Amino acid sequence: MKYCSNCAGKIRIGIPEEDTIPRHICDNCDIIFYQNPKLITGCLPVYQDQVLLCKRAIEPRKGYWTLPAGFMENSESAEEGALRETREEANAEVRISHLYTMTSIVHVNQVQLIYLAHMDKAEYAPSNESLEVALFSEQEIPWDELAFPTIKNALSFYFEDRKKNQFPLRELTFKGN
Amino acid sequence: MKYCSNCAGKIRIGIPEEDTIPRHICDNCDIIFYQNPKLITGCLPVYQDQVLLCKRAIEPRKGYWTLPAGFMENSESAEEGALRETREEANAEVRISHLYTMTSIVHVNQVQLIYLAHMDKAEYAPSNESLEVALFSEQEIPWDELAFPTIKNALSFYFEDRKKNQFPLRELTFKGN
Repeated sequence: MKYCSNCAGKIRIGIPEEDTIPRHICDNCDIIFYQNPKLITGCLPVYQDQVLLCKRAIEPRKGYWTLPAGFMENSESAEEGALRETREEANAEVRISHLYTMTSIVHVNQVQLIYLAHMDKAEYAPSNESLEVALFSEQEIPWDELAFPTIKNALSFYFEDRKKNQFPLRELTFKGN
Repeated sequence: MKYCSNCAGKIRIGIPEEDTIPRHICDNCDIIFYQNPKLITGCLPVYQDQVLLCKRAIEPRKGYWTLPAGFMENSESAEEGALRETREEANAEVRISHLYTMTSIVHVNQVQLIYLAHMDKAEYAPSNESLEVALFSEQEIPWDELAFPTIKNALSFYFEDRKKNQFPLRELTFKGN
C-alpha cells in the first residue's frame, strides 16, 4: 500500500496515538488503513460413510484435493459462506451440523472455519474452481495429495471422531509453514 | 475506494471473470481489491461467581458496558488476540477455556468470537479504552447499559449455562440493527 485509496496521496507508515502497531496512514484524509486477518469458511460434507473432496482447478495447490472452502464475503454469515463455497466448488447442497474446526493460520493472516455438513443425495459436479469432485471412504482418502495441512487435520479428526460418533469443535493454531 | 493503493490510478468497479460480485479493480496494475469481513475477538472473563466488564471510553457506545474484545490483528491467533484485548482494555490476565460464542454480525461485516476465560486473581484496572473495569455478579449486571446485543447474548448464555455447568459453543447470526 503506497497511495491513499481515498485521495491518491502518499501513504505514511507510523504508529498512531494510543496504538502499538505500525499502520498505513493518510495525513491528508486523516484515515488509518487497518489490515486484518481474513476468514476462510467451508464444509466437510458427509454422504453416508464417505466425504466429499474437490480437486483444485486454481493455484495455489492446483491439482490437489481439498474441502470446499474459500474467503468469506461481506453481507453473508459464516454459515452462508460455507454453503455458497460448497455450491460454487462442488455443485453440492449440504445441511450444516455445526462448526467443527477453527484454525488460526497465523503466517498467512487467516482464520479457517470448517463446518461439519451432511448431504442427503450423492449429487455433485466439477466447476470452474474444481477439476474433479468425488466422494471418498476413509480407506480411499488421497492423504498424500491433500492441498493443505488444515484439510488433512479436519479429515483426520473426522475419521477419529466418527468412531465415537462425537464431533467436538477443534480449535487450532498454525504458525509458520 | 477511489484510487489504486499501488499506483494511485483510478479504480473501476466491475465483476471479474469467473466471479459474481462487483469488486474494486485497477486495470493498470491488474489488481482486484477484495473487501471481506473482519474478526472481533475477546473474552468473557470469570472470577469466582462474577464476570468482568469494561465501560467503553471510546465510541461507538462510549459509557456503555462491554466484554473486552476488539479487532483481531495480523500475526496473531484468535486466542492471542482475545488475550491481548483483555490486557489492553481491562489490564487483566485470564486463562482461556474455549470458544463460547461465534456471531456473524452481517450488517457490519464482522464475525465476533468470545472465549470463555477464567481469572485466578481479581486484578484489573481501567485503560485508555475503558473508563471503568469491574466485576459483576448475575444480580448486578447492568442489562440496560450494555454496549451491544452480542454482549447481552453472551452474558445471558453464560448465566443460563452456569446452572448446568455446561458451556457449549453458541453459533449465531445477526442481520440488521
